[in-house]
Amino acid sequence: MKPKKFLLPESEIPTAWFNMQAVMPNKPLPILNPATREPLKPEDLYPIFCKASADQELNTTDEWIPIPEEVRQQYASYRCTPLVRAYDFEKALGTPAHIYFKNESVSPSGSHKLNSALAQAYYAKEQGITNLTTETGAGQWGGSLSYATKKFGIDCAVYMVKVSYQQKPYRRSIMQTFGAAITPSPSMSTRAGKDIITKNPNDQGSLGCAISEAIELAINTPNCKYSLGSVLNHVCLHQTVIGLEAEKQMALAGEYPDIVIGCFGGGSNFSGIAFPFMRHNIRDGKKTRFIAAEPASCPKLTKGKFEYDFGDEAGMTPLLPMYTLGHTFKPASLHAGGLRYHGAGVVLSQLMKDGLMEAVDIEQLDSFSAGVLFARSEGIIPAPESCHAIAATVQEALKCKQTGEEKVILFNLSGHGFVDMSAYDSYFSGEMQNPKLTDEELSRFIKSADELNK
Amino acid sequence: MKPKKFLLPESEIPTAWFNMQAVMPNKPLPILNPATREPLKPEDLYPIFCKASADQELNTTDEWIPIPEEVRQQYASYRCTPLVRAYDFEKALGTPAHIYFKNESVSPSGSHKLNSALAQAYYAKEQGITNLTTETGAGQWGGSLSYATKKFGIDCAVYMVKVSYQQKPYRRSIMQTFGAAITPSPSMSTRAGKDIITKNPNDQGSLGCAISEAIELAINTPNCKYSLGSVLNHVCLHQTVIGLEAEKQMALAGEYPDIVIGCFGGGSNFSGIAFPFMRHNIRDGKKTRFIAAEPASCPKLTKGKFEYDFGDEAGMTPLLPMYTLGHTFKPASLHAGGLRYHGAGVVLSQLMKDGLMEAVDIEQLDSFSAGVLFARSEGIIPAPESCHAIAATVQEALKCKQTGEEKVILFNLSGHGFVDMSAYDSYFSGEMQNPKLTDEELSRFIKSADELNK
Repeated sequence: MKPKKFLLPESEIPTAWFNMQAVMPNKPLPILNPATREPLKPEDLYPIFCKASADQELNTTDEWIPIPEEVRQQYASYRCTPLVRAYDFEKALGTPAHIYFKNESVSPSGSHKLNSALAQAYYAKEQGITNLTTETGAGQWGGSLSYATKKFGIDCAVYMVKVSYQQKPYRRSIMQTFGAAITPSPSMSTRAGKDIITKNPNDQGSLGCAISEAIELAINTPNCKYSLGSVLNHVCLHQTVIGLEAEKQMALAGEYPDIVIGCFGGGSNFSGIAFPFMRHNIRDGKKTRFIAAEPASCPKLTKGKFEYDFGDEAGMTPLLPMYTLGHTFKPASLHAGGLRYHGAGVVLSQLMKDGLMEAVDIEQLDSFSAGVLFARSEGIIPAPESCHAIAATVQEALKCKQTGEEKVILFNLSGHGFVDMSAYDSYFSGEMQNPKLTDEELSRFIKSADELNK
Repeated sequence: MKPKKFLLPESEIPTAWFNMQAVMPNKPLPILNPATREPLKPEDLYPIFCKASADQELNTTDEWIPIPEEVRQQYASYRCTPLVRAYDFEKALGTPAHIYFKNESVSPSGSHKLNSALAQAYYAKEQGITNLTTETGAGQWGGSLSYATKKFGIDCAVYMVKVSYQQKPYRRSIMQTFGAAITPSPSMSTRAGKDIITKNPNDQGSLGCAISEAIELAINTPNCKYSLGSVLNHVCLHQTVIGLEAEKQMALAGEYPDIVIGCFGGGSNFSGIAFPFMRHNIRDGKKTRFIAAEPASCPKLTKGKFEYDFGDEAGMTPLLPMYTLGHTFKPASLHAGGLRYHGAGVVLSQLMKDGLMEAVDIEQLDSFSAGVLFARSEGIIPAPESCHAIAATVQEALKCKQTGEEKVILFNLSGHGFVDMSAYDSYFSGEMQNPKLTDEELSRFIKSADELNK
């Protein structure tokens, strides 16, 4: 029997995260205080984030950052996650390529998000924090932080975009099962929320508003900090356990990836699978291609501009040097809710600028077509976000079919789609469409960033 | 770091199923043709079931039945499943007991059901069958057979109880994603369905009717057979991979279970975890207790009678010697849809009669209370069915707390609850109740079996 899954024992859970900032050829530009335009220092972030997160965010020197033993112990409930050879998917595509995927869907919350949630909850606990706040759109991050805080005995308050709160009741129930307090946003519990509701009582919410509410609650509550699930450097750092394990598992399979693929929202799951392999391109002359699969309707890497911009719609965050569609960008309604973000993480943006990675735009219908073929072949129904990585894998595998090359492709299966079945319903019913984004809309949104860079 | 998961490589996937019928002290009474009252021969079952299934059903002599290599290859996509030590659950209960669970929720369909679905689909393919039919209530079995048939290139038609079809759209979508044709039952596609709809156009369906429709379609379609997901001996046989793996994994943990627990609907997941260990009670003087956890509102093992009865409501099946509540039993509405069956499998019933296993009744609210505590401790949201096994585990663990005994408890986590979150909602909202079953109702239903035994 040909081996299908490549497993590692718990003793092989990484003992340190890999910090790309210490290794990349060009360091990222500084993050700026929007008022003074001065580079941010870690202590500027302490009022909002846990100290450890803030320090890691701006750490450009330490290549390896030790993973606390308490976090590793919690990782052990689902890590090391399996690396799987997708034989039947290869067969369905008729490709000579060897396709592997790292299965992060086996985590308690059903996605890779827990890798950072556990770290952030642990650091909060260590610092004496008793409450964490966050926002969630699709609900993957909210579910992960709900579980992680429960494990470390911290209370968790999640602001969930109102339309998701109503349309994704299962995600809400998952957070509730893990013991979090969930508030539909906008809410009357914050000034930011009240202002919006006063203007429009029927406002359906946005990620931008939910972030504002979560930060406001954190700032105004004793022993409370705010926590974010993607984009930021320390979040990408925590996700490198994915690629570090995959590296060892690819060695068990006797192969090394020619192509590494991840879907791309803010960049955390892509960083997780890509960074550990990318260091070998930088140092050891490896020629692996790294492909970020983003939605065609939210194309920050292929059609965005590299500029200073806010991380949120309301402009409350520091100025980040990144590929952006403009902080006022309003992404089309998209089933892959986790990919609807206007910017790319700072480190990732610099790597993109330096040509160390590439990006591809995936149409929604193509993502589900690939996801269904994968489900029928490998038995895992992928999250709509992960379907983008699968669609990019299909593109590369079909190129191999044309050329006859036996390339080794590795993609990150960031999560399962058991709580996203209504999206599949929409696909099967023929009602699903490809969201449109016109050049006119694009240039109008990007102006909101342009103006900050004058 | 204390080891948490006990993993086995794919090479350790069992090569043979364990056939309890060959080992049990008293063989089961014969299954009877209801018309002639003659014991059934395998060939009597050939018109409905695949030949291999029918042969296995009545095989009382071969202790080990080889698992075809093609089935093992498919098992490899998720097996060997992890055995997990539930340290945090022990801590939450404050018990000195050592609690282990076998995690069958990691299968593509999210439950143990796939272990038999893959075997049955393979045998169908080998026999030249091109279509399988089945019924599904809660949807776990339908999803499993949908995936298994897809893997072996067979078409699958699922009759789904109409009320579930409407109330559990995610389960329906999962089956559709795996490529099955799903029909709400009663339907106009069979005589059985037409008769019911003609009488009552708004009939919401029942498992009994869905079984009748699936069998009717199988009998009237060339190259088509019917497939069942629990109760029958060959289904219990296929599930023994669970316990066979667990036996090796408990040895890795350096322990042997004092108590083995599984939830109980028709008996397939309980058989899977229990039978391999039970053979050591029969042969090697082990004293393990085997506890079947059934819903208090469907108490076939504790309050049913051991009698000959039909397996379905309409009385189309052979007469089975089993613990039964009567084939006309109408189980109360219960979130653990997979446990709403009136009878226990034939082999299991004989083992119960002979005192080799015991049973406990679990109230619905207690099952969810235990399930939520487990989710918050171990990070896996259990299926409502599995919550019953967890509640029985809690009972035994709390006894250990009182006595101070460090008993080793092993339970089967038959599936996850990601698609059952509405049940958790009902629990959290306070709307959930314990379904009632009166003595009067009980004796009225049991009469339908009594009359067959006069």
